[in-house]
Amino acid sequence: MGKQAIGVVGLAVMGRNLALNIESRGHAVSVYNRSREKTDELIAEYPDKKLVPAFTLEEFVESLEKPRRILLMVKAGEPTDATIASLKPLLDKGDILIDGGNTHFTDTIRRNQELAKAGLHFIGTGVSGGEEGALKGPSIMPGGQRDAYDLVAPILTEIAAKAPDGEPCVAYMGPDGAGHFVKMVHNGIEYGDMQLIAESYAVLKQVVGLSNEELGKVYTEWNKGELDSYLIEITSKIFDKKDEETGKDLVDVILDRAAQKGTGKWTSQNALDLGAPLPLITEAVFARVLSSLKTQRVAASKVLEGPAAKPPGVERDAFIESVRRALYFSKVISYAQGFAQLRAASEEYKWDLDYGTIAKIFRAGCIIRARFLQKITDAYTKDKAIANLLLDPYFRDIAKNYQSALREVVIAAINAGVPVPAFASAVAYFDAYRSERLPANLVQAQRDFFGAHTFERIDKPGSFHANWN
Amino acid sequence: MGKQAIGVVGLAVMGRNLALNIESRGHAVSVYNRSREKTDELIAEYPDKKLVPAFTLEEFVESLEKPRRILLMVKAGEPTDATIASLKPLLDKGDILIDGGNTHFTDTIRRNQELAKAGLHFIGTGVSGGEEGALKGPSIMPGGQRDAYDLVAPILTEIAAKAPDGEPCVAYMGPDGAGHFVKMVHNGIEYGDMQLIAESYAVLKQVVGLSNEELGKVYTEWNKGELDSYLIEITSKIFDKKDEETGKDLVDVILDRAAQKGTGKWTSQNALDLGAPLPLITEAVFARVLSSLKTQRVAASKVLEGPAAKPPGVERDAFIESVRRALYFSKVISYAQGFAQLRAASEEYKWDLDYGTIAKIFRAGCIIRARFLQKITDAYTKDKAIANLLLDPYFRDIAKNYQSALREVVIAAINAGVPVPAFASAVAYFDAYRSERLPANLVQAQRDFFGAHTFERIDKPGSFHANWN
Repeated sequence: MGKQAIGVVGLAVMGRNLALNIESRGHAVSVYNRSREKTDELIAEYPDKKLVPAFTLEEFVESLEKPRRILLMVKAGEPTDATIASLKPLLDKGDILIDGGNTHFTDTIRRNQELAKAGLHFIGTGVSGGEEGALKGPSIMPGGQRDAYDLVAPILTEIAAKAPDGEPCVAYMGPDGAGHFVKMVHNGIEYGDMQLIAESYAVLKQVVGLSNEELGKVYTEWNKGELDSYLIEITSKIFDKKDEETGKDLVDVILDRAAQKGTGKWTSQNALDLGAPLPLITEAVFARVLSSLKTQRVAASKVLEGPAAKPPGVERDAFIESVRRALYFSKVISYAQGFAQLRAASEEYKWDLDYGTIAKIFRAGCIIRARFLQKITDAYTKDKAIANLLLDPYFRDIAKNYQSALREVVIAAINAGVPVPAFASAVAYFDAYRSERLPANLVQAQRDFFGAHTFERIDKPGSFHANWN
Repeated sequence: MGKQAIGVVGLAVMGRNLALNIESRGHAVSVYNRSREKTDELIAEYPDKKLVPAFTLEEFVESLEKPRRILLMVKAGEPTDATIASLKPLLDKGDILIDGGNTHFTDTIRRNQELAKAGLHFIGTGVSGGEEGALKGPSIMPGGQRDAYDLVAPILTEIAAKAPDGEPCVAYMGPDGAGHFVKMVHNGIEYGDMQLIAESYAVLKQVVGLSNEELGKVYTEWNKGELDSYLIEITSKIFDKKDEETGKDLVDVILDRAAQKGTGKWTSQNALDLGAPLPLITEAVFARVLSSLKTQRVAASKVLEGPAAKPPGVERDAFIESVRRALYFSKVISYAQGFAQLRAASEEYKWDLDYGTIAKIFRAGCIIRARFLQKITDAYTKDKAIANLLLDPYFRDIAKNYQSALREVVIAAINAGVPVPAFASAVAYFDAYRSERLPANLVQAQRDFFGAHTFERIDKPGSFHANWN
């Protein structure tokens, strides 16, 4: 029996679906799982597929062509370290480990460095698209040694999602942790997108008074235009879904307590470390946390009153269009922040990220796939060095034409007592970013006053301290 | 010669001022610095004071009464570890190290545990008030072994600031890292306070058109009422200050690029870890970061236009009062978030923090000292278990009576294109916190749709998954 070109360790749903995806492109795949039940189940379910089971790591490693290509799909953190430690003595110089798990990029940097000392390659790759993406074609964001990537690129390219223009959604992101970093920011952006859509829903429901049926139609309509994206598409379908048990609209039966797995939090924490302003996504993360305090909110709703005055009415169709524009412009602002974080990271960690390519591989397979991403690729194609996407002519025009709608929607929400933390944060960021002068001079004066922290002057370089008293 | 009751290691400005403060209360103080110049300088400057210099750590340790009380005022991080490592072999069981530096609370937890194994006590204490506070009376937030605290409490009580009612601004915060944690949140709150004042300044200047002279008068006036606080007081003075060089108002000469030392960032990162919503302070941290991107902002100001329509005018005096109310209510919201973070931390780290006492020791000595803190102490005295300060009757009334002003000010700022990230975040938090129902049901529907993450239902317990397609 010949040896396989690739093997997968870890046969939970993501691992098994990636194995099946690889197999479907004509490759035999070695498969291994720590407990043999999952392996047996997979083989029993697909007896005719070219899946080659191994029941010890020795057998598994032995079954692979050299240099070995091993895709790890195990739980992030300690289990990944344990699996690597077990595999390491069995491998030869030049073998390639690929971590496709949900790993913090700093762990990937560490593992890449440690394994490199033993002559082993380590690729950390983001894989986005959930179970279905894994099976049919995810967006793939690999980082690690460039020459190791070249050895796995053919298979990754085959299994990746294809963008509307046929291009595969995979590309080399950069050294060590670059791939997992890009995936982390992808997830942060996903938090932002979802919160913005949730706020548009709240405003349309509470300010305009749309029914679920009308909401479904609005999002269906929006999905035909510049907001065309996977998340808007599924949103439109959500409003059409009935609860099988009660016959009610399912969305109304679902508890308003948003959970999270932590990657949004990582993105915000890293932005704080980098000094890259990421207020919108961070508001989205905190909005999920606040939603989870359901018991407190219910209690608070009984004692904290909202606006005393009835909010002014809105002209229905015009206002719906304003919400659409507010959503699109806020999305632009969120991505401008996320891509500025990528730039800050690229400089800090010396990754030389290609922002246009990143937007390109987000165009299919992943959760944030959207027509709009092409505009980001276009912006970086025109000017790779652009400091912020808002400065690109296309986005500048969106800013010019849609900002009044965003202001209008935030104001309407504030008057109605509807919380729109992400929309409001978008306005504040836009107005701050385009401010030649911010009131931070006062902050510096205060810091110098109470702590002798010094200040800079507008008229000459240097650090100065005033005798304030 | 007798031995001293306490010694100070590290004679940079904070260490030397604390030594002088202790000495001024009638105690002889052993002093040591790694390089002897600082020690010599201090002794030369104050030949008549009861400062006992030591030039080796052995000599220093030998000069102290047992159990020894050693206040470490060295640079946070590695230098603190190095100093502890040098001292450790010289100490006896029961001796007490007190770290008064700007230490991350997780380091304090680690050091407390490590030293406890050797029978040594370790107190991590926040010290707030800057150079002047250190000399004349800071606010002191010690955490560590309770019995060790009791042995240093008399001296700390003597040197602490005194609140208007005469109470000393020091109290035992809790075990291991509790003291440094409280100091960290204090600093986060300080970031929030400063950003809110900066936004009030921007609105008064850009929307109302006040001159610096008028601004000085407004803040002087505000400082007589419920906003009475150190930061408002120095703000009023800042607007009166002339630049000695140009004769211009100094505030206008100061560059609008706010610096930071990282404790605000720590507070936000910890809030994300704890799952404690802290959006306002986090917006303040990001606002500083954004202000530091001065070059980008200047470039952006030339291509990104603001609102097309001229904002509606405001009625000057009434609007100034609205800004005052907006500032006060936003401050309440910021502290509600900060104290909720303290509660979450107390539960997570098992500290049993006393929130009313914390507010009490903030009343003097520290940067955020304010009349308003008494209201927080009062709230916790009435109900120690209150989940959020907004639910307290006093703050509830502020919310009821001032929310229309806050909404008005945010709306005016948005219409005028003046960025008010913290004010806007305050409104969003208030409206979200008092929302029985948030649009997070849609977020959960989306997560279940694309990732089978399941959702809860409003009508029965459990986890559910829908077949969305």
